[in-house]
Amino acid sequence: MKNPPEYITSPSNPLIKLLKSLERKKERAETGLFLAEGARIVAEGLARGWHAETVVIAADMADRAAIASIAASAEAAGARVVLVPERLMSKITQKDNAQSVVAAFRQRHLSLADLPAPASGGLYIALFEVRDPGNLGTILRTADCAGLSGVILLGTTCDPYSFEAVRASMGSLFDMPFAASGFCDFDTWRKAAGLSLTAASVNGTVRHDGADLNKGAVILMGNEQAGLPDWIEDACDTLALIPMRGGADSLNLAQASAVMIYEAWRQRGYA
Amino acid sequence: MKNPPEYITSPSNPLIKLLKSLERKKERAETGLFLAEGARIVAEGLARGWHAETVVIAADMADRAAIASIAASAEAAGARVVLVPERLMSKITQKDNAQSVVAAFRQRHLSLADLPAPASGGLYIALFEVRDPGNLGTILRTADCAGLSGVILLGTTCDPYSFEAVRASMGSLFDMPFAASGFCDFDTWRKAAGLSLTAASVNGTVRHDGADLNKGAVILMGNEQAGLPDWIEDACDTLALIPMRGGADSLNLAQASAVMIYEAWRQRGYA
Repeated sequence: MKNPPEYITSPSNPLIKLLKSLERKKERAETGLFLAEGARIVAEGLARGWHAETVVIAADMADRAAIASIAASAEAAGARVVLVPERLMSKITQKDNAQSVVAAFRQRHLSLADLPAPASGGLYIALFEVRDPGNLGTILRTADCAGLSGVILLGTTCDPYSFEAVRASMGSLFDMPFAASGFCDFDTWRKAAGLSLTAASVNGTVRHDGADLNKGAVILMGNEQAGLPDWIEDACDTLALIPMRGGADSLNLAQASAVMIYEAWRQRGYA
Repeated sequence: MKNPPEYITSPSNPLIKLLKSLERKKERAETGLFLAEGARIVAEGLARGWHAETVVIAADMADRAAIASIAASAEAAGARVVLVPERLMSKITQKDNAQSVVAAFRQRHLSLADLPAPASGGLYIALFEVRDPGNLGTILRTADCAGLSGVILLGTTCDPYSFEAVRASMGSLFDMPFAASGFCDFDTWRKAAGLSLTAASVNGTVRHDGADLNKGAVILMGNEQAGLPDWIEDACDTLALIPMRGGADSLNLAQASAVMIYEAWRQRGYA
């Protein structure tokens, strides 16, 4: 860290106001930044080569080895590193229990062409108009745990860089490549890549474990309220039905995604 | 509905203040009540025979057939039914988009002896010190979808009657029996009932699909941060490992629960 380190104490300091404003979508879009919270998560972002513009450290914690190491690597990568008192930490994240480290990272916006193309048998999950950022972050985390090749956000979705999505992803946002696309471009891309398209749907005609997800495949999940429109279901190779006891309502979107992802991985022998 | 119906317009009316206060655990414990939001959810609670003390209806909506039917059946079951302007609805639930109906229901506190004892092959999920109410509600919903026999809350857990848990359960709270217990009483109960105990654990020695969940079984899930203590893992028949790619962190608790529940149901042929 610079000696002496930069130290900010005023909540009206422009940097503090900027970081706090990243809670709002408009400010995230204008600045191209997003906030990541917590030492482990920030360290993961840095280690994966994401660009941190600013790293803010609770002054009381700055001497701890793990925190000092984050400060050093962030500074080496060109980040502005500042110390603040704990009460400013809570101001930035608007949470009672203050983090030791938060950082403003530069967003990445991948297209389908940027997604990794595995040699064979890739497995992707596509989310059509996912609305709840907690679901989106949770699905990124599960996709990461199961080693998926990528996540595709179709149509108008919630912002993967919102506080809630980033929190729910628990660092997987830095690890799991995700791209945004319209459906038609996506459908062309997946066909060219030889990927089958299997949607989880209440209109499913085969039980989900009867859908062949063993070769290159995309699992498609619909919107939380409305599911998938007919014209998209028509474009799928298979509509899969997740079993549900009679009379039950429906699974939460992230829960249904986990069931589909782990079924596909099971078919592949968890390799 | 009574003619003329009771109509409340003041945010300082004691009933409105009481309903609003149910956001806090202390007030829920003192009154024994909890709040359910939304016409579908409230109707489900009434249909399942839960006792609604108070049903509050947005005055603009009171003439709709579905809403009038809720008011009628609530009143027949002894509930106080009141109309309020929409702005008071938002006050009660502290959400911008006001619901058409909210209701204060009486809590139920089941013990293990109250859980349904299926003839054979029952499947339960037990949550040890679950902390996040969103996870708890989501797991109730998934357990309901998969037709589990019951959910067991072990040790000190978050409150299943919090706003967040009730919301995440999407009505399954009324459908899926859940009981609270200490671990030792639970372990005695499940042995007497002939139920095996399989925990999902990072210390798992068999892959989760190698654990025999086909006969009467309890799936045990640990706390979000700390997992399960050693003495509880020692009491399990099987420690199951959910596959995870190398380097990945961990699944969210509700996601891991969904994977375990659907694996057990798969072994039972989704019957």
